[in-house]
Amino acid sequence: MTTHRIDKDSLAEFSAGLFEAVGVPVRDAEHAAQTLVEADLRGIYSHGTVRLQPGYLEALTAGTTNPTPNITAIRESPSHALLDGDAGLGQIVSRVAMEKAIEMARSSAIGVVAVQKSTHFGAAAYWPMMAAEQGFIGFACSDGPGINTAPYGGAEPAQGNLPLSWAVPAGEEFPILLDMATGVAAFGKIAMARLRNEPIPLGWAIDAKGRDTTDAHKAVTVLPAGGPKGYGLGVILDSLTGTLSGGLPSIVKLKDGSPDGLQDASSHFFLAINVEMFIPIDEFRETVDRHIQLIREIRPRDGFDRVYLPGEIEWRTKEKRLAEGIPFRPEEIEVLAQMGRDNGVQPAWSGE
Amino acid sequence: MTTHRIDKDSLAEFSAGLFEAVGVPVRDAEHAAQTLVEADLRGIYSHGTVRLQPGYLEALTAGTTNPTPNITAIRESPSHALLDGDAGLGQIVSRVAMEKAIEMARSSAIGVVAVQKSTHFGAAAYWPMMAAEQGFIGFACSDGPGINTAPYGGAEPAQGNLPLSWAVPAGEEFPILLDMATGVAAFGKIAMARLRNEPIPLGWAIDAKGRDTTDAHKAVTVLPAGGPKGYGLGVILDSLTGTLSGGLPSIVKLKDGSPDGLQDASSHFFLAINVEMFIPIDEFRETVDRHIQLIREIRPRDGFDRVYLPGEIEWRTKEKRLAEGIPFRPEEIEVLAQMGRDNGVQPAWSGE
Repeated sequence: MTTHRIDKDSLAEFSAGLFEAVGVPVRDAEHAAQTLVEADLRGIYSHGTVRLQPGYLEALTAGTTNPTPNITAIRESPSHALLDGDAGLGQIVSRVAMEKAIEMARSSAIGVVAVQKSTHFGAAAYWPMMAAEQGFIGFACSDGPGINTAPYGGAEPAQGNLPLSWAVPAGEEFPILLDMATGVAAFGKIAMARLRNEPIPLGWAIDAKGRDTTDAHKAVTVLPAGGPKGYGLGVILDSLTGTLSGGLPSIVKLKDGSPDGLQDASSHFFLAINVEMFIPIDEFRETVDRHIQLIREIRPRDGFDRVYLPGEIEWRTKEKRLAEGIPFRPEEIEVLAQMGRDNGVQPAWSGE
Repeated sequence: MTTHRIDKDSLAEFSAGLFEAVGVPVRDAEHAAQTLVEADLRGIYSHGTVRLQPGYLEALTAGTTNPTPNITAIRESPSHALLDGDAGLGQIVSRVAMEKAIEMARSSAIGVVAVQKSTHFGAAAYWPMMAAEQGFIGFACSDGPGINTAPYGGAEPAQGNLPLSWAVPAGEEFPILLDMATGVAAFGKIAMARLRNEPIPLGWAIDAKGRDTTDAHKAVTVLPAGGPKGYGLGVILDSLTGTLSGGLPSIVKLKDGSPDGLQDASSHFFLAINVEMFIPIDEFRETVDRHIQLIREIRPRDGFDRVYLPGEIEWRTKEKRLAEGIPFRPEEIEVLAQMGRDNGVQPAWSGE
């Protein structure tokens, strides 16, 4: 299969052009594009540029996402804030929120920011990494309007397959970067199996009657990872996002309606922790490096070449792609090209 | 099988007497006893009074746990602290730490406290519940000296089966209380299967060569819950506790030695979040109640009577035990009685 490699700058410029074409101001467009390209660099295509249309562009055109939000602080103190995202792009709102959390942590040791009335914030990993790049521990989580994951023991969904992400700065090593959802598998993987008429592993999902199934076409509800553990984490994430921000948990909006009409809105929650106010950052980085090295030396099980740290495979993918470009299959290139034609944006790589 | 029911006050008085017998001051003894009785009330015997000996009492007698610690703040600000637990009982150190986090959150919206040189803090749930009882969201996690859980893809352990706990205050409903470890199952369950010569479920643990096993006698390493998810959370918990506090992650101490000689010390991490500084607490409680009610209405899968909220089964157990007493089997009663004889403490229920 032939693949086409696109360098990150061309992809970012093209993606920013698409955001601009639907009314996003240039700085915001550039930033939002960068978050999508970062996901592609890390090999997380499901949260990369192919999500632009339909998805972000459609929501911006339809007005369910606001291209020019007025992001305001409803409550604020030196160590916390509650933001109203004004239905802006999740990436724009989340950048403001995480920058605020980091600035607060700089003087207050910790900053916590809850956000209501935002939209999909892309790959969760981007936000805590903003903190880790500055020597802070970062945490982010979000809810989402979709409900597709069962509670433990339930035959129907009660929560989204919600993301949480932690980033821990290292020294010479890659930062530790955990980005996980509370469900066993992303629903996108089930959708992919449907397209390919392939079975799914037992334990991923249940059918409409709540029975285990390996038939991707009958699988409608994702199971929580680790049973009560993934389910329990999901309830906590809904509480930290929808409940604490006043945006309401998704199942409450689904059953009772959303008081402000923002049925598709997302709520987020961000933390930044200033390591230097606990122990010297150099000592911290040295310990993280040593921790990483010792884990990496653990003898692998049969079938594994070695033990990887959380996020390590993605860091190595990113290094390779920064050097060689981001590989896309022909049909994906065509998806991107079609977005360009639809919005009058010329890809920098066309004609190659 | 006959069981004996002990009322919580008799059990607390007896347990406090045992702590006092090995040199713990009366107030601290009463508090530590209360945390163990709370675990018994919630049905978590593995973290209850039967853990007193060997365990807490032995460590206090041997001096590896300090009965009269001088708990000090190494660093402190209006929203954070780093505490030195002086090798005190984890329960005594953690009470000081969580009270501090709550007081900080009262004025600063959030309080974060990291702790080094502590010891086993018992059931994690006790600490965030201190926050939830006052209308705050609470979080606690800990490392521990034991390393028994594999990283994803590893044939040997690299981390403890580490606990994390979140508590979210409700209104009319029980608080949401998640208390989980990062491994598939507690090692104590494997030890129990060994005693009974029973097999363990496939997927719980691996043998010394890293192979899956259902033989409890050959099972030496617990697998992480949800594969890379439980493993990744474990690495984060080690970072928030051992690394951030300066106490070092357990695997680093194991391989490199502990600089201060406290090889068996634990590190903890606590958060309290002041809900009222985000949205009115009554509105928050109302939303949590509604969230709980909607989850509880989810249609159960075959084999489940209904869906339970995180911690709900334990809350119901506690209600019943507050009314009826805490049931113990004869051999457990004898374990408690032996502790009494060894330490010259008379159980209030003897002769019944």
